Amino acid sequence: MIGFGTRLEQAIDGHGRLCVGIDPHPYLLSQWGLGDDSAGLRDFGLRVVEASAGRAGIVKPQVAFFERHGSAGFAALEEVLRAARAAGLVVIADAKRGDVGSSVEAYGQAWLTPGSPLEADAMTVSAFQGVGSITAPLELAARHGKGLFVLAATSNPEAAAIQTAVIGSGACSGLTVAAGIVADVTDWNLGDPAARIASVGVVLGATVDFAAYGIDFAANGIDTAASDGRPGTPILAPGFGHQGARFDQVDAIYGAAASRTIVAASRSILAAGPSGLAAAITSHANEVGA
Amino acid sequence: MIGFGTRLEQAIDGHGRLCVGIDPHPYLLSQWGLGDDSAGLRDFGLRVVEASAGRAGIVKPQVAFFERHGSAGFAALEEVLRAARAAGLVVIADAKRGDVGSSVEAYGQAWLTPGSPLEADAMTVSAFQGVGSITAPLELAARHGKGLFVLAATSNPEAAAIQTAVIGSGACSGLTVAAGIVADVTDWNLGDPAARIASVGVVLGATVDFAAYGIDFAANGIDTAASDGRPGTPILAPGFGHQGARFDQVDAIYGAAASRTIVAASRSILAAGPSGLAAAITSHANEVGA
Repeated sequence: MIGFGTRLEQAIDGHGRLCVGIDPHPYLLSQWGLGDDSAGLRDFGLRVVEASAGRAGIVKPQVAFFERHGSAGFAALEEVLRAARAAGLVVIADAKRGDVGSSVEAYGQAWLTPGSPLEADAMTVSAFQGVGSITAPLELAARHGKGLFVLAATSNPEAAAIQTAVIGSGACSGLTVAAGIVADVTDWNLGDPAARIASVGVVLGATVDFAAYGIDFAANGIDTAASDGRPGTPILAPGFGHQGARFDQVDAIYGAAASRTIVAASRSILAAGPSGLAAAITSHANEVGA
Repeated sequence: MIGFGTRLEQAIDGHGRLCVGIDPHPYLLSQWGLGDDSAGLRDFGLRVVEASAGRAGIVKPQVAFFERHGSAGFAALEEVLRAARAAGLVVIADAKRGDVGSSVEAYGQAWLTPGSPLEADAMTVSAFQGVGSITAPLELAARHGKGLFVLAATSNPEAAAIQTAVIGSGACSGLTVAAGIVADVTDWNLGDPAARIASVGVVLGATVDFAAYGIDFAANGIDTAASDGRPGTPILAPGFGHQGARFDQVDAIYGAAASRTIVAASRSILAAGPSGLAAAITSHANEVGA
């Protein structure tokens, strides 16, 4: 079995670090001449998949826009997920799920079980109930060669109060919430032997002031790499394009971890419309690089 | 339009504070003689709804168990939600959704828009990206007479490090993450005029040591009530039964807020099986009281 981290490495080697968002906002559906319904979601998603194949290595459907249309929206998403995986794209379901016990295990099963209708290659998760609360999906991911990205420091300014709060108990005492999550994830990845890129990553927004968030890439294990005998923890990076960071800043922002940083772009690509999509993906992929 | 808080008050007045969980764990489906598939989910959910109607006022489907089966699982959930609302039950979708901007707005639209396929009366949300990140669903809820329950101090021990971390910036500086969320929610509820119970609540687990979590029911606005000119913030309370707290402890644990505390019970009811379900709901409702 090839682990998620290795598949991610292959995708980056082949097509660079760009991750194309599949975000069927209602206003984009309208701009694309599609209905705000399950058929529109399906067509939108399949067009992004088709344009991404061969031009980018990674896509990220935003689950919320499919969930808006209930079961019919999920049926559309299932088609999009299948098409993307069949095209060889690495698919990160941006679901931000979180819960405890058998409930969070069920979320893991939904997205990470081979053969599941919503099977993706990785999903985003929220650890508001503790990194310990997501043990079940972490174990599921390891068992099935899948990946997880745990929210740590997101790119929205209103997250600062909670994500910079200082932990006062347990192994991460003294760290901020964001840094504690990063440290817990990099520790988990010590169990991923021999991988150059580990299978569990963190979400670290490009517009975040990492020092102000108490995140130290060296101390929190982000800068470590296979050359140190530790697999490198991948980063899922929102915050580029419309959200403020420039695509040519990836290396400056993420330093030693930049080669395993997945650069998410949605609106700046999708606004090109169906006819301009392929060209927009190519130009973004070139700008982001590998 | 009757607000969610008023509907909640009516449900509690009529049937007490018990909230029956609709948690189709795979092991329960098997124990009930149902398949681990969408038909099994549907039958399970409809039986819980039928047994709850007239015996309890509130039900809470755990979305994760339906999501396990993808779009077919969501189609089953849609039927369960419709049946529950048609039976006059107050339905809290336990989805723990969270995101930012138009994505979190889409989650709000999915669950809180009248006529939406997944329409519920309220949903649970996670504010890991800041209470400010869930403004869109807060506004949607207010517009449509719906409710939200924001995770604050959950009942799982591994949540302690993050939920007790101390905020160092913004209006909640000096409070723990859990207390800051509670304070932000009770502040939001000041805008819910004349309601005895407000439409936005917090999740505060029954097994949590509130003092250790930095939560002060008076200082954080939980104890205030319409008699003070402030609507009372409702509490969704996991942690009873199998999770450790006794059902006869509700008043002792939640004090002045106990009358608007929704007592979630799942496994201790559902383990009775389909034939024992009605009796288990009645005995739990009697024990929990109003």
